[in-house]
Amino acid sequence: MIGGDAAGMSAASQARRMKGPDELEIVAFERGHFTSYSACGIPYWVGGDVDDRDRLIARTPEEHRARDIDVRLRTEVTEIDVDRGRVRARDLESGAEAWTSYDKLVIATGARPVRPDLPGIDAPGVHGVQTLDDGQALLDTLARTGGRRAVVVGAGYIGVEMAEALINRGYEVTVVNRGREPMATLDPDMGRLVREAMTGLGITMVDDAEVTALPTGADGRVRAVATADAEYPADVVVLGIGVRPENTLARDAGLPLGDHGGLLTDRSLRVRGQENVWAGGDCVEVLDLVSGQLRHIPLGTHANKHGQIIGTNAGGGYATFPGVVGTAVSKVCDLEIARTGLREKDAHRVGLRFEAVTIESTSRAGYYPNAAPMTVKMLAELGTGRLLGVQIVGREGAGKRVDIAAVALTAGMTVHQVAALDLGYAPPFSPVWDPVQVAARKAATRITASR
Amino acid sequence: MIGGDAAGMSAASQARRMKGPDELEIVAFERGHFTSYSACGIPYWVGGDVDDRDRLIARTPEEHRARDIDVRLRTEVTEIDVDRGRVRARDLESGAEAWTSYDKLVIATGARPVRPDLPGIDAPGVHGVQTLDDGQALLDTLARTGGRRAVVVGAGYIGVEMAEALINRGYEVTVVNRGREPMATLDPDMGRLVREAMTGLGITMVDDAEVTALPTGADGRVRAVATADAEYPADVVVLGIGVRPENTLARDAGLPLGDHGGLLTDRSLRVRGQENVWAGGDCVEVLDLVSGQLRHIPLGTHANKHGQIIGTNAGGGYATFPGVVGTAVSKVCDLEIARTGLREKDAHRVGLRFEAVTIESTSRAGYYPNAAPMTVKMLAELGTGRLLGVQIVGREGAGKRVDIAAVALTAGMTVHQVAALDLGYAPPFSPVWDPVQVAARKAATRITASR
Repeated sequence: MIGGDAAGMSAASQARRMKGPDELEIVAFERGHFTSYSACGIPYWVGGDVDDRDRLIARTPEEHRARDIDVRLRTEVTEIDVDRGRVRARDLESGAEAWTSYDKLVIATGARPVRPDLPGIDAPGVHGVQTLDDGQALLDTLARTGGRRAVVVGAGYIGVEMAEALINRGYEVTVVNRGREPMATLDPDMGRLVREAMTGLGITMVDDAEVTALPTGADGRVRAVATADAEYPADVVVLGIGVRPENTLARDAGLPLGDHGGLLTDRSLRVRGQENVWAGGDCVEVLDLVSGQLRHIPLGTHANKHGQIIGTNAGGGYATFPGVVGTAVSKVCDLEIARTGLREKDAHRVGLRFEAVTIESTSRAGYYPNAAPMTVKMLAELGTGRLLGVQIVGREGAGKRVDIAAVALTAGMTVHQVAALDLGYAPPFSPVWDPVQVAARKAATRITASR
Repeated sequence: MIGGDAAGMSAASQARRMKGPDELEIVAFERGHFTSYSACGIPYWVGGDVDDRDRLIARTPEEHRARDIDVRLRTEVTEIDVDRGRVRARDLESGAEAWTSYDKLVIATGARPVRPDLPGIDAPGVHGVQTLDDGQALLDTLARTGGRRAVVVGAGYIGVEMAEALINRGYEVTVVNRGREPMATLDPDMGRLVREAMTGLGITMVDDAEVTALPTGADGRVRAVATADAEYPADVVVLGIGVRPENTLARDAGLPLGDHGGLLTDRSLRVRGQENVWAGGDCVEVLDLVSGQLRHIPLGTHANKHGQIIGTNAGGGYATFPGVVGTAVSKVCDLEIARTGLREKDAHRVGLRFEAVTIESTSRAGYYPNAAPMTVKMLAELGTGRLLGVQIVGREGAGKRVDIAAVALTAGMTVHQVAALDLGYAPPFSPVWDPVQVAARKAATRITASR
């Protein structure tokens, strides 16, 4: 296994379940200090919701070793030799390098954060939040500096989650965003709701802004984020611009990469053209079942599934990964944000024509205490009425409702079918028509009328 | 329309959307005082979560009348004459009766609570909670009597919801239940979790107990609930034993009733054998898509859907009701209870063999604050692996997860497919494997091993 986080170690654990130590020797190379941790949990650790880094670690190296998985920490694979079935690894402490041969290889090298080539990008006080080591470095900065001003660059999932974390730490937070609205994974009309809510939380939102430099002070530390138009003072800067597949090794080994830089695999997650090399997690591209196209979706839930499937296959069993529908959920303070399937521009790109509807509803029956408002946007294909995508922005109870749409998308349901679903109803849980069904009903009416 | 609650008035409203007043005259007969109210909300009104009865009313008679729907309150239909296309109705205030002819008839007579023929059943202090009038009568009793002891007869949805309501009112609550465990809509092993939680809330649970009488005091008011073995003192008794379709009129008119006493309809909700009579809501039987059998499931969400479909069809459009999968969700204080699909005994009854698995998980990532435990039970068909049913008992965030399974059941998914679904994941919303998927994964492993 190259990579000791979600995909790699899930694969290792599952392969071990399939085959005992006398049948299969498992070695896992990890260049960092940790295994099997929740990178998705880092914002909540930084924000103080999770008080202890170790709580983010699902399984320590020692626990893996107790199950006869040979975890080699601080050991970076520097070359894959697929022809001879071996990898070269360097001990990052001693610098020593050695080749290790394999019968089966799992590539789970994850993703690396985008770090634009800007003046000051490497200055102290500028932090990514991709690994536990990153999170610890950021927390050290927060503890060391007396400042109260934070700038987050990027307004996607990591950006909004880090904005919440820094608000919770008592910082004045500015989010500098290249797009017109935050959460570019939503359509702009839904992203606007996120911006309004974030502004309401006291976060300064700077939209349509390209960062040009990260000016530093006399001490060499970052002191601001500069755009073409302005400069935003910062005691700490968090980069949340996104990630790219970490596939330097794979590229050098001549393995096939897709348009998004991710490894290309078959349905069993075997690397294309390879007999005994699998890949999963943030370093691969996945099939989007709605658009029929390949995408790069770095997300722990996929990585864990990939690992389980790879471990089953590498262990002599049979399992496949059918693909994704692009479901994601996040929150910033009490605002919940969810999406699945295609946005308007995704649908346009693949030539799908659609009706888009937006409705307002509530998380519970309107008369029930704490019924929280939510906005649901739904796209349905013209003619067929097939559900294409759903976006939800609201308060408590909004986010996980996207699962209804995620399952319906996977099943290829029409909005007429979604409107007729037998969903859980009682006043503390839902209005008599679930908000997703209110949207489906409106979309169905439009589709029927347009036929 | 015979019946002015969810199904009847949804049908009226939808028909009015389809046809203007010059095209279609709509008359709705309602024997009670209210229209379009949420009977499901009554426990929360009684419990004080909803402070005002009027908040349970979605649309008043005046609002309906403003849309040219002729609502006749306190007017009971006493006979349907399908041959001549007319109904006879009695004004309950004056006693006057008159025939009204129709071109199209909608039967939405709802359900009536089971009232066993027991000594004392009609004594003051014994209450059903089926209608707003019932709820008001119960609240009057609670306000009038100084007592603090309440006995709830029945431990289904109404029983557990009323137990919560009475706990919230400060009563000592005893629930007397005929079955071995509460919530007979769950398998007993899951019902046991509900009993344990209710006991933990200070509710006295009496299981395996048949009520033999409701003894009254010298003042004629109920003073206890008696079983073969014991007597439970009561200042107020709430009956939550269940309901039956209210189909006296339909039976007398020779309309077709099923094994559960509900009207039989086709997919467009037209009464079987009738050209111009539709029926929906608590008075009909519905197709269970999982078992392939007809069931009686009185629930507001179905009634509203039925009304919308009937109104579309009666208004000259086209809509059908595909059936249900048996989804229900409820809560007692902070315990959430949900189910969909088949229980073990349902599967046995229809000749389906299955694997049943039960898992423990949490509503959020284990390290995230307020991650609440939940238990998920899942049934999957042997061989095919088709999902058959899911039951969930847990705390906040447990109940609505049943929707994942409800959609998957409707789509006929296997547990292997459920385990691979792309569901919303982020630490505040879910563990990296959603609890429903943890169960699906376990079931899939069992199914594959048993092949």
